[in-house]
Amino acid sequence: MKSSFAQHYTIQELADKLNARIDAPSERVAASTLIGVNTLEAAQQGEVSFLANPKYAPLVASTQASALIVHDEYVAPEAFGGVLLRTENPYNAFLRAVQFFYPSRPKQAGFRHPSAIIAESAQVHASANIGANVVIGEYCTIGEKTTLHGGVILYDSVHIANDSTLHANVVCYDHTIIGSGSIIHAGTVLGADGFGFAENKDDGSFTKIPQVGNVVIGDDVEIGANCTIDRAALGSTRIENGVKLDNLIHVAHNVIIGENTAIAAQTGISGSTKLGKRNRVAGQVGFVGHIATANDVTVNAQSGVAKDIAQKGVYFGTPAKPFREELRIQASLKQLPEHLRHFPK
Amino acid sequence: MKSSFAQHYTIQELADKLNARIDAPSERVAASTLIGVNTLEAAQQGEVSFLANPKYAPLVASTQASALIVHDEYVAPEAFGGVLLRTENPYNAFLRAVQFFYPSRPKQAGFRHPSAIIAESAQVHASANIGANVVIGEYCTIGEKTTLHGGVILYDSVHIANDSTLHANVVCYDHTIIGSGSIIHAGTVLGADGFGFAENKDDGSFTKIPQVGNVVIGDDVEIGANCTIDRAALGSTRIENGVKLDNLIHVAHNVIIGENTAIAAQTGISGSTKLGKRNRVAGQVGFVGHIATANDVTVNAQSGVAKDIAQKGVYFGTPAKPFREELRIQASLKQLPEHLRHFPK
Amino acid sequence: MKSSFAQHYTIQELADKLNARIDAPSERVAASTLIGVNTLEAAQQGEVSFLANPKYAPLVASTQASALIVHDEYVAPEAFGGVLLRTENPYNAFLRAVQFFYPSRPKQAGFRHPSAIIAESAQVHASANIGANVVIGEYCTIGEKTTLHGGVILYDSVHIANDSTLHANVVCYDHTIIGSGSIIHAGTVLGADGFGFAENKDDGSFTKIPQVGNVVIGDDVEIGANCTIDRAALGSTRIENGVKLDNLIHVAHNVIIGENTAIAAQTGISGSTKLGKRNRVAGQVGFVGHIATANDVTVNAQSGVAKDIAQKGVYFGTPAKPFREELRIQASLKQLPEHLRHFPK
Repeated sequence: MKSSFAQHYTIQELADKLNARIDAPSERVAASTLIGVNTLEAAQQGEVSFLANPKYAPLVASTQASALIVHDEYVAPEAFGGVLLRTENPYNAFLRAVQFFYPSRPKQAGFRHPSAIIAESAQVHASANIGANVVIGEYCTIGEKTTLHGGVILYDSVHIANDSTLHANVVCYDHTIIGSGSIIHAGTVLGADGFGFAENKDDGSFTKIPQVGNVVIGDDVEIGANCTIDRAALGSTRIENGVKLDNLIHVAHNVIIGENTAIAAQTGISGSTKLGKRNRVAGQVGFVGHIATANDVTVNAQSGVAKDIAQKGVYFGTPAKPFREELRIQASLKQLPEHLRHFPK
Repeated sequence: MKSSFAQHYTIQELADKLNARIDAPSERVAASTLIGVNTLEAAQQGEVSFLANPKYAPLVASTQASALIVHDEYVAPEAFGGVLLRTENPYNAFLRAVQFFYPSRPKQAGFRHPSAIIAESAQVHASANIGANVVIGEYCTIGEKTTLHGGVILYDSVHIANDSTLHANVVCYDHTIIGSGSIIHAGTVLGADGFGFAENKDDGSFTKIPQVGNVVIGDDVEIGANCTIDRAALGSTRIENGVKLDNLIHVAHNVIIGENTAIAAQTGISGSTKLGKRNRVAGQVGFVGHIATANDVTVNAQSGVAKDIAQKGVYFGTPAKPFREELRIQASLKQLPEHLRHFPK
Repeated sequence: MKSSFAQHYTIQELADKLNARIDAPSERVAASTLIGVNTLEAAQQGEVSFLANPKYAPLVASTQASALIVHDEYVAPEAFGGVLLRTENPYNAFLRAVQFFYPSRPKQAGFRHPSAIIAESAQVHASANIGANVVIGEYCTIGEKTTLHGGVILYDSVHIANDSTLHANVVCYDHTIIGSGSIIHAGTVLGADGFGFAENKDDGSFTKIPQVGNVVIGDDVEIGANCTIDRAALGSTRIENGVKLDNLIHVAHNVIIGENTAIAAQTGISGSTKLGKRNRVAGQVGFVGHIATANDVTVNAQSGVAKDIAQKGVYFGTPAKPFREELRIQASLKQLPEHLRHFPK
């Protein structure tokens, strides 16, 4: 992994930073300059890798990594030609190494691209960074060191607190509120109208129900690319502090997602549903509207949650059931064709 | 719900507009200025709420709403400290109230942001509103009072009739046609190439099949955020009048969606499939290609529609079956593990 | 299908180009100028259509097409009033006709819209076409005749080779690499952060795991609209040569998609999963993370692939099973309610 932003270190410098013990012939230690991190398979000379999961141990003999972060007790194969950096928790040490090599790019202080279009009544903090072709509507407020990448469009009265990042082409409809330290990835749309229509019984046509609420995103939230979070019909659609959403997720009007809940890609949550705190929702799950989940609920991939989940635990299937119940049904299904042959009507 | 656009009313003014009967001590009526609408739970002083569904009646005692739209016969709890506005149909009255408080923003007449880039041969009606950084290609036509929000990009020969709204960053490929009174939400892409390739049998590679049709959107259509409606290979992909699409919906090449059909989020419709009129399709449904549904068909969430549906009615499951049949199967499945224990092979 | 870009031909000219045999009274041949292609149903006077699938033969009697590409042996109904163009393979001939009528628009050589914002250190080939409001970051390189449509945003150090096309509002995060002859449709986001977080066991909150890898797209790849391909945590997320992706597809960090694999809309692939070559994946399929498929694997719509697929073949269901096995289960399920009635516990 080469990067124009990567730092370089000697083995000794990295070992000191990680509080790791060097284990290698001294000539190897002297010869190496470390320029980045990589996986065991892809690492090239000058790169650091790690071994945390024993499943990957067979890759050590052939890795080209110059340094390898391993457990205190690890015994390396003869063929490994690099330097071992021994530590109690190799994975954590490696994560710290990543941050040493690829420090967050120093935030510009007060960068403002001349092409940005900022309404007169908007208040943009002097330390905020505003990219090319950004459009900021009337009455918006942008906090300290918040960054709007190229092409971000804020309708009127959008409020974003400090240290948040909106990536390219994010759109916030009017009255969207975003807290501090949150990250919204490219192409995500916050605050589009909820899907609310009254059916005209005579001809099956629809009259639009005004969607006059907004979207409120808390602090330390991360939302992936090309998601859609709709504004409330009335009141607010709320994404609470610490929530993490993957890509292409749909959140309908008046949904509330509780603190520190994480949701994988392509899941959809229908109107007015309320997820508890610390839920763990896998990909392509669907929730019907107007239901609630408890705290600490896990829902497995492609499940369809059709009613309240009042007890914490793991759920699976369509309709979603306790995990073991669904597994028993899936196992039974495999036997069903044979069973019917043995018990013909 | 505060909004810079909200109108304010006295109780009497609102009651007159709604043709509702005021029921409260006169000092309460005099004291209140109404500044917005909200739910029973979230309403604060100065806001109007409503009670239509008896399920929410317990919230009336503690609501902070200053006025409550209720049924003629409703008996309020002692604890309620606001004003009752009595009417025959509280929900309808409330919807009207929403429109009184949050009138559609007066459409600018002929707003044109100086950053907009409009090709010389394009014809933009003088009353159309063109936002910041909009790009309009050659031979496009934009009708009366149609609004293009910031960052909308129209390729060449796109035609949009009157009173339609394209939200920020919508993209229309060449030859897209949009009728009157339609709304397209942010990030939606109309007219990208259909997914058409001829496989080269020798090596499994693909040759692109030219996609030379277009997309035609009717009148009074609403399409949610980040949807994708592909151009036809030949002819047109058609979204007929009055259709409502939620977010993140995929419509493949040559699909036709019949009048007044509504489709919830994350549903996908494969190539050349034709949905009838007044279909009601829930979220995360998939339709295979080259099939058709009758008028007045309802499909429940996460269903997989694998063949024609010739009769109106409700369908569910993968593959989609008549609703009751799928329910019987789902109920049977719950008994299956136990059944197999009692009837071992 | 009218198009400002369509070429016009006489019957004789088109027959010569297609190497087809004209079969019609000579006055019909002389009278016709051909101006475009269309389906049997939608064709109007002056348009060419074709008959390859016998299922559509009943439409020939009423088509308005002036010319019809048919098989050498085809017998037309009396009512058909146009010209037959006879050939061995009508479908292939028709595809070639499409390309004659709608040649790819001549690529501009070196078009550069004055509104484009190009960083000083970026290297854009003189023959590349750069649309309105495009933003190109530092150290980017753009190859020969590559086209960036309006609103494309490239972060720093993005590299795109020759003859590729990025449609409107595509976003590439830093270090994204795209090969030659590839097409990326509007609104797609390449290189957003992978969904990687370490859970803090005490309170269920998350710490972001740095995502310092990138996305590498090969040659002759086509990616649909509003897809999301995440950057690797370490190393690269790779879309190999010749891969075709439909719309709204999610590809997570460190996924590898093998050569000439095609994937339909709304499918999602979880982190570190590796698809083989020439896989054919239908719509709305989900793959869990850290698994692999063999070459030449087909997965049917809405399947959930939960473990490695080591053998080529067709798979279906959740969890995905060999196609016939899933079909037997689906058939059994239909009998299950009745079976349980006959064998009560």
